[in-house]
Amino acid sequence: MAGDIAAGKARAADSCVACHGPAGISILPHYPNLAGQKAEYLEKSLRAFRDGSRVDETMNAMAARLSDQDITDLAAYFASLR
Amino acid sequence: MAGDIAAGKARAADSCVACHGPAGISILPHYPNLAGQKAEYLEKSLRAFRDGSRVDETMNAMAARLSDQDITDLAAYFASLR
Repeated sequence: MAGDIAAGKARAADSCVACHGPAGISILPHYPNLAGQKAEYLEKSLRAFRDGSRVDETMNAMAARLSDQDITDLAAYFASLR
Repeated sequence: MAGDIAAGKARAADSCVACHGPAGISILPHYPNLAGQKAEYLEKSLRAFRDGSRVDETMNAMAARLSDQDITDLAAYFASLR
């Protein structure tokens, strides 16, 4: 499944950017930067947050709303940023 | 506790660089880049791997060997990279 960068950007605007920043550079020190991160790692992280194998109250709630396609698109989008 | 970038660099050479790359840009797609990541997030991640609250077979074993000072130094080092 190929990630759609434009779709990922639109999906990110909903919620991700509030903590991770509009360009994937996070605003607060305990949130990771996502810009330029490996797409495969981002996908793995989102799936782990969604299935609960990685525990973080905020991210578990966020990821619960994501489809497989959303995850692939978001990973492609953040990986595409500098 | 302030992180010592030089000490972190020396500690990273032991093992981190094998997967995360000599400049914090990882070699394989399922390993995250660490260069330029927020120090506080890196510390949080290493502590979670060490105490087992974040599960990853490789990282749990790696982090088990780290002292609090090692963690602070490693976080300072990878955060300092571009």
